[in-house]
Amino acid sequence: MCSVISRVKPVRRALALTLRLGASTERSSYAAAERRRFSPGVTARVDPLLAPCRSYCSRMALTEGLLFRQLFEKESSTYTYLLADTETKEAILVDPVLETIDRDLKLIHELGVNLKVAVNTHCHADHITSTGLMKKRLVGLKSAISKYSGATADILLSEGDKITFGKHYLTVRETPGHTDGCVTLVSWDQSMAFTGDALLIRGCGRTDFQQEKIFTLPDQCLVYPAHDYLGQTASTVGEERKFNPRLTKSLVEFVNIMNNLNLPKPKKIDISVPANLVCGVHEV
Amino acid sequence: MCSVISRVKPVRRALALTLRLGASTERSSYAAAERRRFSPGVTARVDPLLAPCRSYCSRMALTEGLLFRQLFEKESSTYTYLLADTETKEAILVDPVLETIDRDLKLIHELGVNLKVAVNTHCHADHITSTGLMKKRLVGLKSAISKYSGATADILLSEGDKITFGKHYLTVRETPGHTDGCVTLVSWDQSMAFTGDALLIRGCGRTDFQQEKIFTLPDQCLVYPAHDYLGQTASTVGEERKFNPRLTKSLVEFVNIMNNLNLPKPKKIDISVPANLVCGVHEV
Repeated sequence: MCSVISRVKPVRRALALTLRLGASTERSSYAAAERRRFSPGVTARVDPLLAPCRSYCSRMALTEGLLFRQLFEKESSTYTYLLADTETKEAILVDPVLETIDRDLKLIHELGVNLKVAVNTHCHADHITSTGLMKKRLVGLKSAISKYSGATADILLSEGDKITFGKHYLTVRETPGHTDGCVTLVSWDQSMAFTGDALLIRGCGRTDFQQEKIFTLPDQCLVYPAHDYLGQTASTVGEERKFNPRLTKSLVEFVNIMNNLNLPKPKKIDISVPANLVCGVHEV
Repeated sequence: MCSVISRVKPVRRALALTLRLGASTERSSYAAAERRRFSPGVTARVDPLLAPCRSYCSRMALTEGLLFRQLFEKESSTYTYLLADTETKEAILVDPVLETIDRDLKLIHELGVNLKVAVNTHCHADHITSTGLMKKRLVGLKSAISKYSGATADILLSEGDKITFGKHYLTVRETPGHTDGCVTLVSWDQSMAFTGDALLIRGCGRTDFQQEKIFTLPDQCLVYPAHDYLGQTASTVGEERKFNPRLTKSLVEFVNIMNNLNLPKPKKIDISVPANLVCGVHEV
């Protein structure tokens, strides 16, 4: 197991899954530390992340030492996300694209951050990932993807795994539907969710009922998808719960919508999927 | 003068301009309130916005009641920004584009915000603004642009003007060069600067020496430009000061670079500029 990934114990994970929250791990030490800092000596009766002070607490934490950049690849309308701890300089990259590898490496170099993990939210069908090539150009970089993706990578992710960078981390929530190996990466304070293709802004990938894992997040949680075709850059869980034209429907209506999309075969699927099963290059 | 715009007194403005900060107005009441909140009874000896606690203070303030969305228009690679006070629901829109008016109005409607002002950072040459058409579709909406733009609008902006929405505001800094009427809009806490074409990420518009107005902002200030052609969504003043390939050069070198760009005539300039001189429609 890579040193930047930490895992919760099976019993705790099972409990989290049973509760359908899948994320009690995100609330433990960090939330407790925050609570102590703002209310020393006080035992919180309600979950501090859901209390009125939530945006206050989580956002301040976000800024205290987090570098965050959203990057866009035009041809496939893919978003790549760079997150780093400004103190330790440890960084992770979510869904990097082959065509923009030089841009991304230049930014990483300029910012002076140390990229530890390049993670894919799933095995993409519309573009080739740059994780394999990036590993060749950055010593020590590890690639990561869901163990259910069928793909090869240094780190095979499971529900509840944490991808850490400095004092921050993202927790893995398995959100299958679009593909078996789709994951959503949730920030330690539940203020950001990198949803891949499981949940798009006012839409979703070709998918199933994965929203239970995402819609249990707080309303204020920012949604950062893998794609957007209308120039939107972010949304919130609350907005999607209210306005998502597919996920506000009943189960029967949802299945009917998804069965009648009649979408064409993705242009690059025959090239992208085989390549992405091996981190975008044939010798990882 | 529109009620959402407030102006500083001439003497104060002159002083600010002389100091080349152009923004002392942003630091007054808000900074004082923040200082009182975090250090009650303590008189700050250094500017709290430049002290080590800066990112702490400014970001927390940012989150306390600010809604922020960055939106992208693909054809002209233009960014539009929506900012709103989550309490009063008053909102402003920066650089909206005609092609994406329906997307923007839908979002404004869904979020339930009340758009007070649609402001252009300058008279654009590459796309037509939607401010005029938006005024026809949203009762009470005001358009705004620099008084040096030569364009017609409800509000003609000058150095030091404030565009307020709820408890927040953006302050106008005149940053001519790309056009005579280019302005940069700086948030109350100097955490965000909407630079238009005056400063792009790792670049600048066809311009002159406007960077003195932007590079006096704190290093951590996020730079949100009007365009990006490489899929980058934001930068910081510190990064641009260090890595901008044009603005890190000497005056002589800069002039030489700008004189030898040999850029083609913008495709839409003959349509866009006349339209944008009247908010994108011929009867405002």
